[in-house]
Amino acid sequence: MPDITLTQATTIVEAARSFAESKGFLMNIAVVDQGANLKAFGRMDGAWLGSIDISIKKARTARWFDMESGDLGPLSQPGGPLYNIEVSNGGLITFPGGIPLTVGDEIVGAIGVSGGSVDEDRSVALAGVDALS
Amino acid sequence: MPDITLTQATTIVEAARSFAESKGFLMNIAVVDQGANLKAFGRMDGAWLGSIDISIKKARTARWFDMESGDLGPLSQPGGPLYNIEVSNGGLITFPGGIPLTVGDEIVGAIGVSGGSVDEDRSVALAGVDALS
Amino acid sequence: MPDITLTQATTIVEAARSFAESKGFLMNIAVVDQGANLKAFGRMDGAWLGSIDISIKKARTARWFDMESGDLGPLSQPGGPLYNIEVSNGGLITFPGGIPLTVGDEIVGAIGVSGGSVDEDRSVALAGVDALS
Amino acid sequence: MPDITLTQATTIVEAARSFAESKGFLMNIAVVDQGANLKAFGRMDGAWLGSIDISIKKARTARWFDMESGDLGPLSQPGGPLYNIEVSNGGLITFPGGIPLTVGDEIVGAIGVSGGSVDEDRSVALAGVDALS
Repeated sequence: MPDITLTQATTIVEAARSFAESKGFLMNIAVVDQGANLKAFGRMDGAWLGSIDISIKKARTARWFDMESGDLGPLSQPGGPLYNIEVSNGGLITFPGGIPLTVGDEIVGAIGVSGGSVDEDRSVALAGVDALS
Repeated sequence: MPDITLTQATTIVEAARSFAESKGFLMNIAVVDQGANLKAFGRMDGAWLGSIDISIKKARTARWFDMESGDLGPLSQPGGPLYNIEVSNGGLITFPGGIPLTVGDEIVGAIGVSGGSVDEDRSVALAGVDALS
Repeated sequence: MPDITLTQATTIVEAARSFAESKGFLMNIAVVDQGANLKAFGRMDGAWLGSIDISIKKARTARWFDMESGDLGPLSQPGGPLYNIEVSNGGLITFPGGIPLTVGDEIVGAIGVSGGSVDEDRSVALAGVDALS
Repeated sequence: MPDITLTQATTIVEAARSFAESKGFLMNIAVVDQGANLKAFGRMDGAWLGSIDISIKKARTARWFDMESGDLGPLSQPGGPLYNIEVSNGGLITFPGGIPLTVGDEIVGAIGVSGGSVDEDRSVALAGVDALS
């Protein structure tokens, strides 16, 4: 099973940061490996402190379930089939900003971004994803 | 008080795994004893890493309350009598996939399954339950 | 990077259990994958409940540091270079009973055993290791 | 109060990584800010998974007490004035590898390194410290 390298992870964090800067966003950016373990991280100056943990949890959620963190959100709402799944695994984040990272057909890790609106977070995460291609 | 044996628990995990494999599901399967302590566990290759904890929590929830994990879900919704009970006990899972295991009239433990849709999870848990009969 | 399969992990747990039974030991036996995530587990009837967590922590410790759990013990003693490293990672176990599992030159996971003396625990873990060869 | 910037933190991680690579060490490298919050992190390919948490805890320990993590070790031994202080703050690491980062006379954060012997860890942390000068 392939795993993400530090060179790749660093490139991803830098690409996400650069995109965020171009938009005026202040973001926390985390990359985990295929075992959902932290591989690389950067927090932009002035980014929310509370988003350190959220960015890491978004990345882990995306790798733990091999889908975007935001794809879990509709399922975990009141009345939904996965209501309150967020209490598992020491805390999941089920809103957007966590995206799996793939090389070829294989998931090698995930990126998680937090610091702005969920749409802003996801756009920065996608900039990171693009850097791996 | 009767308790589940490792032989029984292993048989249950294997039956659940075999059923899951026949359906093309990738599942985490946990069995807890009458004290809600982990007795046996198996994770199929490629099954979600985030479902390790969920499968164990489903099994514990089913034994802690002597009912299917999914039976708690309607009660824990906003406005419901057990609203957010999920934060207790280090984290409950209140959607389907956890089922008590009984021998005669006595509950001897529970099975918890996670890795697919809640219907898929429950069907695999039932395959495990059937193996004890 | 290769990972342990459920078939391998199940074989390892069964071999360790069988050896423990032949010695009259009551053991908890855990196998984690190359990402230190739980892969398979079995608790023998009557084995200490407190050893569930210890067996899993031994396996994780062995994989987290790619060495036997007991190799850390001399280093973490009072006055040693890694004193109280046990408080990291949510709890390490640094006495014997956790051993990495290798295929060829690559570590694919680890086994952790708890339930008796540390020598007994380690002997059962070694029986599991041998089953992978 | 001055704080470390992401540019500085990234430079520090990269300098530490480069030094580690030149020595053949596989390290986890963490930088925290003046509030002891994670600022930047990188894990070299193949570095111990268990050292992710330890590197972050070393950095936090160094900033929480404004001294090298290893300076606490002699005080926390059995019979010492800070016996078992390691259980505070969610886990301290009191052996070498965590060093405060200063700009002029002010502490702006700390670096924590884990992955080898404590002497190796500290040498890599010092390479990071030097990069800030």
